Amino acid sequence: MAKFLLNDFMIYDHIVSALKEDVGYGDISTDFITADIDKDKKFEILLKTREEGVLCGCDPFRLVFEILAKDDVKIKFYKEDGDKITPDEPVAKITGFPRYILTGERLSLNYIQRMSGIATFTKKFQDIASPYGVKVVDTRKNTPNFRLFEKYAVKVGGGHLHRFNLCDCVMLKDNHIALMGGSIETAVKKVRDNISHAHKIEVECDTIEQVKKCLNAGVDIIMLDNMNPSQIKECTALINKRAIVEISGSVNLNNLEELAKSGADIISTSAIVAKAPTLDLAFDYAG
Amino acid sequence: MAKFLLNDFMIYDHIVSALKEDVGYGDISTDFITADIDKDKKFEILLKTREEGVLCGCDPFRLVFEILAKDDVKIKFYKEDGDKITPDEPVAKITGFPRYILTGERLSLNYIQRMSGIATFTKKFQDIASPYGVKVVDTRKNTPNFRLFEKYAVKVGGGHLHRFNLCDCVMLKDNHIALMGGSIETAVKKVRDNISHAHKIEVECDTIEQVKKCLNAGVDIIMLDNMNPSQIKECTALINKRAIVEISGSVNLNNLEELAKSGADIISTSAIVAKAPTLDLAFDYAG
Amino acid sequence: MAKFLLNDFMIYDHIVSALKEDVGYGDISTDFITADIDKDKKFEILLKTREEGVLCGCDPFRLVFEILAKDDVKIKFYKEDGDKITPDEPVAKITGFPRYILTGERLSLNYIQRMSGIATFTKKFQDIASPYGVKVVDTRKNTPNFRLFEKYAVKVGGGHLHRFNLCDCVMLKDNHIALMGGSIETAVKKVRDNISHAHKIEVECDTIEQVKKCLNAGVDIIMLDNMNPSQIKECTALINKRAIVEISGSVNLNNLEELAKSGADIISTSAIVAKAPTLDLAFDYAG
Amino acid sequence: MAKFLLNDFMIYDHIVSALKEDVGYGDISTDFITADIDKDKKFEILLKTREEGVLCGCDPFRLVFEILAKDDVKIKFYKEDGDKITPDEPVAKITGFPRYILTGERLSLNYIQRMSGIATFTKKFQDIASPYGVKVVDTRKNTPNFRLFEKYAVKVGGGHLHRFNLCDCVMLKDNHIALMGGSIETAVKKVRDNISHAHKIEVECDTIEQVKKCLNAGVDIIMLDNMNPSQIKECTALINKRAIVEISGSVNLNNLEELAKSGADIISTSAIVAKAPTLDLAFDYAG
Amino acid sequence: MAKFLLNDFMIYDHIVSALKEDVGYGDISTDFITADIDKDKKFEILLKTREEGVLCGCDPFRLVFEILAKDDVKIKFYKEDGDKITPDEPVAKITGFPRYILTGERLSLNYIQRMSGIATFTKKFQDIASPYGVKVVDTRKNTPNFRLFEKYAVKVGGGHLHRFNLCDCVMLKDNHIALMGGSIETAVKKVRDNISHAHKIEVECDTIEQVKKCLNAGVDIIMLDNMNPSQIKECTALINKRAIVEISGSVNLNNLEELAKSGADIISTSAIVAKAPTLDLAFDYAG
Amino acid sequence: MAKFLLNDFMIYDHIVSALKEDVGYGDISTDFITADIDKDKKFEILLKTREEGVLCGCDPFRLVFEILAKDDVKIKFYKEDGDKITPDEPVAKITGFPRYILTGERLSLNYIQRMSGIATFTKKFQDIASPYGVKVVDTRKNTPNFRLFEKYAVKVGGGHLHRFNLCDCVMLKDNHIALMGGSIETAVKKVRDNISHAHKIEVECDTIEQVKKCLNAGVDIIMLDNMNPSQIKECTALINKRAIVEISGSVNLNNLEELAKSGADIISTSAIVAKAPTLDLAFDYAG
Repeated sequence: MAKFLLNDFMIYDHIVSALKEDVGYGDISTDFITADIDKDKKFEILLKTREEGVLCGCDPFRLVFEILAKDDVKIKFYKEDGDKITPDEPVAKITGFPRYILTGERLSLNYIQRMSGIATFTKKFQDIASPYGVKVVDTRKNTPNFRLFEKYAVKVGGGHLHRFNLCDCVMLKDNHIALMGGSIETAVKKVRDNISHAHKIEVECDTIEQVKKCLNAGVDIIMLDNMNPSQIKECTALINKRAIVEISGSVNLNNLEELAKSGADIISTSAIVAKAPTLDLAFDYAG
Repeated sequence: MAKFLLNDFMIYDHIVSALKEDVGYGDISTDFITADIDKDKKFEILLKTREEGVLCGCDPFRLVFEILAKDDVKIKFYKEDGDKITPDEPVAKITGFPRYILTGERLSLNYIQRMSGIATFTKKFQDIASPYGVKVVDTRKNTPNFRLFEKYAVKVGGGHLHRFNLCDCVMLKDNHIALMGGSIETAVKKVRDNISHAHKIEVECDTIEQVKKCLNAGVDIIMLDNMNPSQIKECTALINKRAIVEISGSVNLNNLEELAKSGADIISTSAIVAKAPTLDLAFDYAG
Repeated sequence: MAKFLLNDFMIYDHIVSALKEDVGYGDISTDFITADIDKDKKFEILLKTREEGVLCGCDPFRLVFEILAKDDVKIKFYKEDGDKITPDEPVAKITGFPRYILTGERLSLNYIQRMSGIATFTKKFQDIASPYGVKVVDTRKNTPNFRLFEKYAVKVGGGHLHRFNLCDCVMLKDNHIALMGGSIETAVKKVRDNISHAHKIEVECDTIEQVKKCLNAGVDIIMLDNMNPSQIKECTALINKRAIVEISGSVNLNNLEELAKSGADIISTSAIVAKAPTLDLAFDYAG
Repeated sequence: MAKFLLNDFMIYDHIVSALKEDVGYGDISTDFITADIDKDKKFEILLKTREEGVLCGCDPFRLVFEILAKDDVKIKFYKEDGDKITPDEPVAKITGFPRYILTGERLSLNYIQRMSGIATFTKKFQDIASPYGVKVVDTRKNTPNFRLFEKYAVKVGGGHLHRFNLCDCVMLKDNHIALMGGSIETAVKKVRDNISHAHKIEVECDTIEQVKKCLNAGVDIIMLDNMNPSQIKECTALINKRAIVEISGSVNLNNLEELAKSGADIISTSAIVAKAPTLDLAFDYAG
Repeated sequence: MAKFLLNDFMIYDHIVSALKEDVGYGDISTDFITADIDKDKKFEILLKTREEGVLCGCDPFRLVFEILAKDDVKIKFYKEDGDKITPDEPVAKITGFPRYILTGERLSLNYIQRMSGIATFTKKFQDIASPYGVKVVDTRKNTPNFRLFEKYAVKVGGGHLHRFNLCDCVMLKDNHIALMGGSIETAVKKVRDNISHAHKIEVECDTIEQVKKCLNAGVDIIMLDNMNPSQIKECTALINKRAIVEISGSVNLNNLEELAKSGADIISTSAIVAKAPTLDLAFDYAG
Repeated sequence: MAKFLLNDFMIYDHIVSALKEDVGYGDISTDFITADIDKDKKFEILLKTREEGVLCGCDPFRLVFEILAKDDVKIKFYKEDGDKITPDEPVAKITGFPRYILTGERLSLNYIQRMSGIATFTKKFQDIASPYGVKVVDTRKNTPNFRLFEKYAVKVGGGHLHRFNLCDCVMLKDNHIALMGGSIETAVKKVRDNISHAHKIEVECDTIEQVKKCLNAGVDIIMLDNMNPSQIKECTALINKRAIVEISGSVNLNNLEELAKSGADIISTSAIVAKAPTLDLAFDYAG
């Protein structure tokens, strides 16, 4: 599966900052306990999962220890982002000085538990939608300053991304259109005259009349907002591949398959991120 | 209810950074739609909740618009952090130029939905524990770089805080003690000789034998890890107020009351943060 | 003319940093000269242009003095970004303490001279292309860390923007396609399966055969790279509105009109930024 | 030729920031194209110039790839900063994974094209002035936050530097002197009493009477502003080595030699930076 | 002696920033002198102390050269933080290119001279107090943004730390208590109800009556502020190990022993940091 | 007395960072004590000095409260930087909410106590030297990242500044000259050919022979390093105003007058900063 490259330079500062948040001016438990112990003493421990899921977050996990310990902690991953993981097999082996492993344990887990949780939960959604050729995409409802990690996890889980931010793609909602006197055509024209030709235009529709106006205006993506399956079918038939059809609104694991059958190309939902439980990975000191 | 002061200077940079994350180089939908509209046109909208809960996050919500719009957006809060909110009453009125309100909507909601969600969920836990004189406290299992917001929300929800970071209080776990040859007394002495007199020492115990060693060593807080209620009662009787008793492990809304009855002073759980659903607040453009 | 909103929060840090670059630990000329002069003495000076052009950069100009002097320097602009300016009319009046005006003069001019230069030069290109319904767009050949200012200036000058950065739109060049065994179709499919539905795909073509493959692959934008006008005409006839046609390569004020006539939708050129001479604005202390 | 040391720690943050500017949250073209290709596949390409010039910017060029790819891209320079480069000989060989080379190409070129452009253009000026023992120096008319790169390029091109910033050297202009009642002597005394003995004082003069006052006041550098060659000769004769003579104002490649003959020590001009065309270096994938 | 771990990631940015403060845009003396000298020429010099003391600051010393020179300067320490150093034995050998050694000399010494000075001075205090089982602790009277280095040096010198910052431990002073109507009990209750159970409460007392109220309120640490030795003895007898006793106020090397005899557990003083003379370490180029 | 302008934008980040250092995630004493008190309750307190001295640091003092409290704390200064202050007269009145005043007290004092201490101590040195027309200047032996505050305080105390950093002025020491084969003339020529004409050259001399070489080489400043008064007189007679004469080495309040009589222009010493005791300013809550 093709993934984004989560380049170290993009996330390095986030991890340094998070280490400062968690370590403060020093780990007063570990620093003093380890101060005089044998310098050659090393821990060799395993990273394991206690439940099945999709692994995600190897890079931030590794960087926590690189920033904390440079070469004094070595991590060998047996799996990589996107792989299925189970309690039967270790995810990684971590070898190094106790002071660094004990100090970095919580933060490294905070990244990988949350990211694997999102990847795992996303996969459940996408697996339901895939047989119908539908892509499940996320939204901008993210934890502030943690979006890159959350969107990356969606992708690793097999899901797809909606726009990353407000400069990625035009999305006209009812309030934008109201400002143009209620005319979808005027709003679309106003924006098209000004945006880059490299950008698409999406418009949110509540009714089939609005969908017709979007088709006249030549929008790239039509979002059907909170429509029921029969309305969606009617609209997709009308649209007939002249625009990408996205549906949105209160998607969950129960209603997803029915929505996926209704003819849309894309189903967007904040649930794959906002409602994803963390995946329970832990350090096993017994090795 | 006494709250932490969430000073603007502590969170200002976080919000600037999150705005850059969400706006990128410009809101290409809103900027062009609003470019030529009447300069005197203002939106006057309401912030409402669609479900009952505890409000939390007024300061970051306000700062999003201060940073984005300076004086061009005014917010009047009808409620403050810690107040109960219901769909019947608006939370705040937001008045200002459409371009700023439309651009700042998603991020301001991302803060207040997540923080109110944690405060609301925490209150459910604390309300169960309070009749027994027990404090529910959080853990360090936070979203990286979002800890201040999450811990603040716990406090606003009526919960209490465990240590903020690794320099706040000593916490000796089994792996620390193993490094001292398995001796709790040696580990506690080693640390006490070195830490500030302003810091406490907490030790994690799995057995009543360990609890006895902790009492001999004079630790301030004894954490009973994953014990069942009868074990907890035995330990608290033994401890008999000579140390603060904290219990931990797989706490949820179902087993909380039984744990609260078992004699401990403190129940710590990552659930109040990690499992808190967001609270559904939204902008009501109809005013 | 609709413009981007150059929000202060996006450029604030750039200007603080540039002030530190220029002022260092103090303006040793001005600080001592002004140390003991009458506190009520103020300069009232005019910002003028010595040559005709398009004004651009009012916001960074203003912010230099806001950061340096807070309320102690007032700027009244008689023109706004996008307006034509001539030596006959002042652009702005600046009133305030001499120490701030003398210290901020060079940096405020460095922003406005360069940005107005780009806006002015872009307008020359766009004015030639507009009668043919063609948009002139920029490239990513910018001064590092100054891109936001340069792209904003292109827009203010009436030009249009190509992708801002590498995550804005797919652009497949010959080396990307070579990695897919030379197959445009394979490359486009590979990317389309993975990117957001909110993104477009552009492919660079050197030959009409490549153009045909792009049409089969359903790309959104076809860039004709370094083709001559007759080749361009042939390709645009073939494409026949099934994709946006962009032409590129060695565009200048002399060959632009001929290129604009050749049927393309978009002409991209780094010249509007990289070759734009600064516009000669200056402070007139005589008022 | 002796050069400044452009220490990595001085420019590291600039390049990280520029990479974030250009890459955003990922190179969506390259990341997906390269996601599944053979991990051992490497590009070996050449950096070449398409026109003769002076090379400048090897360090930022190299750092772009170090930050992006760590050890996964290797660069072997055949030339170093200050060397003459021609289309006949490659400048460097770049070997490494396609994903990094394709992603870093534009930014690495943006640094080296602009810096080599300035070095090349500066050399043209200095070569004209050198036979007369005159140094050509730059000004503070730089691209904000890009000054270090621009001034370094002037030096590499054989030119010399005027003050880097406002704390480097005193420069009294007409408006400073006006604040001291029009008296050069008063202004110079005021400043000399306060500045470090490690700093020089320069005064801008329009007339020979002002030059005489500067000599009385013992200034270190006299700038003759916009004088014609005969005025310059008269002033330099009067000054007679008692101060460094700098001339300034509308210098270009046509009038430079005549100015250089007029007896001054220093000719300052913003042209060597502001009007320098970029040098056309490019990646040659054919190797 | 157990020490804090002064992790590189905690101090890295401080040292980069200090290098920029000291080097500016280049060491114009060293850069030009070394520009053309033999590339194989290396300095091999010794770091020596000119007076006896306690070494402190090896990590920032080393990092100055790592940041400046990467692998081109090697440092071999013969001593480590906390060791006694004398003029008879070298502290470290520094080998590398002259340009880096000359440029980094002053800053590396600024760290190690000041930190060793504090460690040395602290040791004098602690050595007087240790026979009486008393810990000497520091205060928050630090150089802004240099606290981590100063507190680390106190610890290395054998001293102990008071709270690092305002969130580390409660300290109620007279003005806090006045806000609670002058009631120590009310103030302590108010705080205890709200703080983490992981935090201690300290109260400042001027009189024995206040001490009694503190005992009733169950405070953890009682600070006797500016009491004389006989008052201190009276209070410590009364407290009788029910709380930690800290004394404070005008402590110096002359009165310290008498205070140490008076029965307190802790003596806090800003003198060990604020009055510590720097230790005279220097580079010996003769090797 | 003319002072540097300590512009807020130069020091703002330093103070925000220092506030974060001191406040951490909250002042747990003050926040809870003040949480429920009457919102109209304000403190009105005085800033006083307990010993006579020169005031310095009003701007950082003020900024601590501006950043912490915005408009909720008002400061009225009765004195300004450079003024003599005594215990008889208050320095400033501070009015505002208790929570902010109690939280900001220590940090605001940390700035003003240290800066006033340096200004006061510097004045003692300069007052001894002034009758002989000699300027006392500082060195680069500063607390890392606190140099701007320390050098500003020297200036406010009536002292003068040596170079701020390594790019301010050339200073050739014995090790620089040794690299040029021991020839002062070669070293000076090498540097002069490369530096800006806006920079001076200073050379450190141990012998009168070296002084003669400096005069031949036309250096701007000759530093006589660790010479005794009679050597200094001999050298100054030889130099005879052809260069500025600076003397250096083990200067203190006892030997300063004799050195000042010996004919030098400048006496440089690290003592005015490194050995300056803090000045004892404090908050007087009684008003």
